[in-house]
Amino acid sequence: MRDSMKHQIRILGIDDSPFDFGENAALVVGAVVRPPMYLESVMKTEVAVDGRDASKKVVGMVSGSRYQDQIKLIMIDGIALAGFNVLDLDFIHTSLEIPVLTVTRDKPDFSKMQAALMKYFPDWRERLALLKKHELREIPTEHKPLYASGLGLQWREFEELVKASTVRGALPEPLRIAHLVATAMVEGESHGRA
Amino acid sequence: MRDSMKHQIRILGIDDSPFDFGENAALVVGAVVRPPMYLESVMKTEVAVDGRDASKKVVGMVSGSRYQDQIKLIMIDGIALAGFNVLDLDFIHTSLEIPVLTVTRDKPDFSKMQAALMKYFPDWRERLALLKKHELREIPTEHKPLYASGLGLQWREFEELVKASTVRGALPEPLRIAHLVATAMVEGESHGRA
Repeated sequence: MRDSMKHQIRILGIDDSPFDFGENAALVVGAVVRPPMYLESVMKTEVAVDGRDASKKVVGMVSGSRYQDQIKLIMIDGIALAGFNVLDLDFIHTSLEIPVLTVTRDKPDFSKMQAALMKYFPDWRERLALLKKHELREIPTEHKPLYASGLGLQWREFEELVKASTVRGALPEPLRIAHLVATAMVEGESHGRA
Repeated sequence: MRDSMKHQIRILGIDDSPFDFGENAALVVGAVVRPPMYLESVMKTEVAVDGRDASKKVVGMVSGSRYQDQIKLIMIDGIALAGFNVLDLDFIHTSLEIPVLTVTRDKPDFSKMQAALMKYFPDWRERLALLKKHELREIPTEHKPLYASGLGLQWREFEELVKASTVRGALPEPLRIAHLVATAMVEGESHGRA
């Protein structure tokens, strides 16, 4: 991708904050970034820990934003926010008409997730179905691969946008910046692998 | 300044959030940036609206940070946070042993500020003395000049660090990013001239 093209693109990265057991909600932060790393806007919402509102809250946050029409891709750190508040990628994509890509650095362990869901959630079948609905694919980076699921773009385009927005390490800037902000707002200072 | 040098430098930008009358505290956000624009860390604190704790809170935020020893310059958006919570630049500089630069885009109107201070604050003389203690100088940019006061570096060095960390517009990235985050956390989405 040419530099002049990259700079015109806006990618929204979304990550949630850490939360303690007993807390009802987690902060969710969105960072609008022009690749490779120019931060253009920040937004936030809150979602219920282990709730079912994450998809609606994400759609509400983006559709209330001045950047809705300019976002080329929404990258989300993982397929669930605030614990097991699993995202419905089809709902998000259909509601906003924006491509969506979930990205994780650790390979999801579906059997472990299924066991946890079955133990704690009467609606575990629905949550598990959302978790597994879209194929998990590897995206190569200069470090370890990323694990991603997406819809709305050709896979080659997802890979190009991840590459165009990655500066150091393996994590794209929209996700790294959203992580830094979400962590700092809850813990006082950002930390972790971002 | 050579690019290889710029990338090794860390600048902490500090800005406060908007607040409504009647609120007791404003959020203050710090963004650690490697010039020109790589966001490395985010931190936060809170200061009392129109209080006297801003200097101590800034010192506490930075001295509790893992980046204290690596910050080459603290840039602060203006000489006061959260209304008229005026900063004591000498206290900050002496406590942290880090150079400090306050930066504003609008030329401060000291006579107007003095009138407001006299009207509302019994300790107006002390606040005014802090406001005016350090010489206000212009820093040229590609747009309108910035107005700045600083201590701990040669003026030429302040100007170089402002230039090295400015990407678009006149505001250096550490301040622009701190502003985006502080605004978004209070209003839901960043806005304003940043």
